[in-house]
Amino acid sequence: MFERLRGTRDFLPNEMAARKKVFSSIKKTIEEFGFFETDTPAIELFELYSIKSGEEIIEELYAFEDKGGRMISLRPELTPSVVRVLVSRAKELSFPAKWYSIPRLWRYERPQSGRLREFYQLNIDIFGSEDPRADIEVISCAIKLLCDLGFDESDIEVRISDRRMLQEFLLNLGIENYFDVLKIIDKREKISEKDFNEMLIGINLNNDQIKEIEIFLNSKGNFLSSIDALSKSYKGEGVSRIIESLKKIAQDLNDRGYENFVTFDPSIVRGLDYYTGMVFEVHDRKREFRALFGGGRYDNLAELFGGEHIPAVGFGMGDAVLELMMRRKNIWPEEKVQIDIFIATIGNVEREVTKALTSLRGSGFKVDFDIMNRNLSNQIKFADKLGANYLLIIGERDLKEGNVTLRELKSGSETKISYNKFISSPSSHLTKVL
Amino acid sequence: MFERLRGTRDFLPNEMAARKKVFSSIKKTIEEFGFFETDTPAIELFELYSIKSGEEIIEELYAFEDKGGRMISLRPELTPSVVRVLVSRAKELSFPAKWYSIPRLWRYERPQSGRLREFYQLNIDIFGSEDPRADIEVISCAIKLLCDLGFDESDIEVRISDRRMLQEFLLNLGIENYFDVLKIIDKREKISEKDFNEMLIGINLNNDQIKEIEIFLNSKGNFLSSIDALSKSYKGEGVSRIIESLKKIAQDLNDRGYENFVTFDPSIVRGLDYYTGMVFEVHDRKREFRALFGGGRYDNLAELFGGEHIPAVGFGMGDAVLELMMRRKNIWPEEKVQIDIFIATIGNVEREVTKALTSLRGSGFKVDFDIMNRNLSNQIKFADKLGANYLLIIGERDLKEGNVTLRELKSGSETKISYNKFISSPSSHLTKVL
Repeated sequence: MFERLRGTRDFLPNEMAARKKVFSSIKKTIEEFGFFETDTPAIELFELYSIKSGEEIIEELYAFEDKGGRMISLRPELTPSVVRVLVSRAKELSFPAKWYSIPRLWRYERPQSGRLREFYQLNIDIFGSEDPRADIEVISCAIKLLCDLGFDESDIEVRISDRRMLQEFLLNLGIENYFDVLKIIDKREKISEKDFNEMLIGINLNNDQIKEIEIFLNSKGNFLSSIDALSKSYKGEGVSRIIESLKKIAQDLNDRGYENFVTFDPSIVRGLDYYTGMVFEVHDRKREFRALFGGGRYDNLAELFGGEHIPAVGFGMGDAVLELMMRRKNIWPEEKVQIDIFIATIGNVEREVTKALTSLRGSGFKVDFDIMNRNLSNQIKFADKLGANYLLIIGERDLKEGNVTLRELKSGSETKISYNKFISSPSSHLTKVL
Repeated sequence: MFERLRGTRDFLPNEMAARKKVFSSIKKTIEEFGFFETDTPAIELFELYSIKSGEEIIEELYAFEDKGGRMISLRPELTPSVVRVLVSRAKELSFPAKWYSIPRLWRYERPQSGRLREFYQLNIDIFGSEDPRADIEVISCAIKLLCDLGFDESDIEVRISDRRMLQEFLLNLGIENYFDVLKIIDKREKISEKDFNEMLIGINLNNDQIKEIEIFLNSKGNFLSSIDALSKSYKGEGVSRIIESLKKIAQDLNDRGYENFVTFDPSIVRGLDYYTGMVFEVHDRKREFRALFGGGRYDNLAELFGGEHIPAVGFGMGDAVLELMMRRKNIWPEEKVQIDIFIATIGNVEREVTKALTSLRGSGFKVDFDIMNRNLSNQIKFADKLGANYLLIIGERDLKEGNVTLRELKSGSETKISYNKFISSPSSHLTKVL
């Protein structure tokens, strides 16, 4: 007997139906925001990732040499592929472009609750706009799709920051090795305060600077008031432009009714190297999980990939941790696939079954029938297992009088109807019984 | 600039929409036949394929060692995965099980027209029934989904045979190395008659036997009459059971209206080793392509995978050659993605836009708006590019009188309406204009 690989999943029909229901809720919300679906290959050249993906991602790649001697990789994230498409086909596009996709991704991690080696990840991105309204759309879309799935502000917190803000703050403190500090801040939640301080000392920061950084990172709170407070503490043209943009984001998120979802949290930096501005993370209020997902602005990636300057903002949300969260809240759908009509038979009525099948399916009904020569009672049991709404019983004896029996399986109510009339216009008969 | 790998595809929104339209037509047909969708991982243990897949498939695997030292492979076909699931979860299933899936598959082939290295392949299978009605369902479903896509009997020919028939025929000729002959027959279309004969001589067949095989393989024709003819030439209990089953298939396909789609063709054997009974191939009448797709009965695979005996019949249809065929006939959809409403602005009306966005999206409309500070005429141009049905113009001056303008973009007809009334119930206003 073969096993599936660790960290991968099989989906039987009911499990598949549940996932499809969740995905279609997500797609509906996203399309209301004006995003269009795109698709890219699951395999890409290895270099697509070695350039700009975070170290952690590179270590977890399913990379290998193909039979033509190229180093290729299963995609561990979507962004590099999407930016590759954007750069290679920029001429045929209109900007801003709002794209989404729910690709399968692969990362060789230790499988654990909410982390798989093969998973789906919703990606939405807006390309071609530096305007904070693009950031607002992306953050709002994240919140709205979670709300449409059944979450509310008691479940979810969206922590927002801006990398440029952090950089300006560090420059104000006389610290110029921004990326070194960034990497240490990114690890902060996983290490002790002592280790955190020692790492900062290790890159030549002094105690005063470290104290200031601690204060800054802990200045979390209501988005709009935090930004107001910042605007009083930090001055300068660079800072004021960033603050103006964050203020606009905060104000508009309030107008959209999301005030109680969002927090300003300057300790949010996100692992990926390519973020350049606003960054955000979605957390569960109970703090059972690290971060559910996150995203931000990455204005330089298209250029790094050899294209024009195409500003971008987006996020990626994995399906495994989302499912966990939904199960905790009991909002993961318990789907049961079903058909409309099961045709049960008594005696030799095969050709009449064929005609009925053709007629019913031609009218758009989902129809199945007995191919096991079971007795009537076992056929009905099987129809129940298929979740059939109706049972059409075609029996040799009834047929001699031109009749068949239509039974609604839930209520058990039955009608005897003319076989010919039924198959010449099945919809009218089925709505009658409905 | 990065390139995508040869034999893989990117899908921009319109291309994606076209593919989605085709796939959803296919899914609709299949679900009318009572099939339920399932899903399995894209990566599997290498041994899953080395056991039973055809040689050609093994040579084309994207196989590699993962970071845990396991030999794994991207799936080159779905059947082994589905049978693995079936065997490992047989206890929770009811039979017959009718499953479908449209997985991505990968094969390292020379990319050419209709052949890609990464492609989608529709798979449908019925598990747990040996009844010819299961074969009929599978063949009918293949024909019906092609018809629902816009093909008819002038485009498509379904050539059907039965491997047991061939085996019985060979035994009648005193030939017992059935699989050796099978492999040579499978290559027949790709080689010359001379090479074909020499290969048969190479496995010790004599000239009489080869002549008989040639006659048998060329006895193509109307399905039902061919079977009738066979039943006169070949006797014996084994043969008559196979003939009875084929006759039933032929009769029922005629009853379903597919007489002119189907042909009996004993030269059809299919490459895969695991077929055990009925096999079929779908061909284009113009013979521009080799075989569009094919399938058949494989009753022993579950046992070979360490499970119980679970009879099975199904087919796999790749999307690349289907798209080519549809393009030749001009039935590949020319989709253009679109939104419902674009909000254009004049002056500073951001908060009113936010309210309108929230209201319209909350009512299920697909809405986008200007985030580029474009002038009105450029906003309208962009709305056209997005294929918007409506333009909602929110202008500072109009707003002072409480009004906004709703324009239907195709007809150009405009109405001035109250902003407040509009956002409190957008649907009623939009249907009015409709």
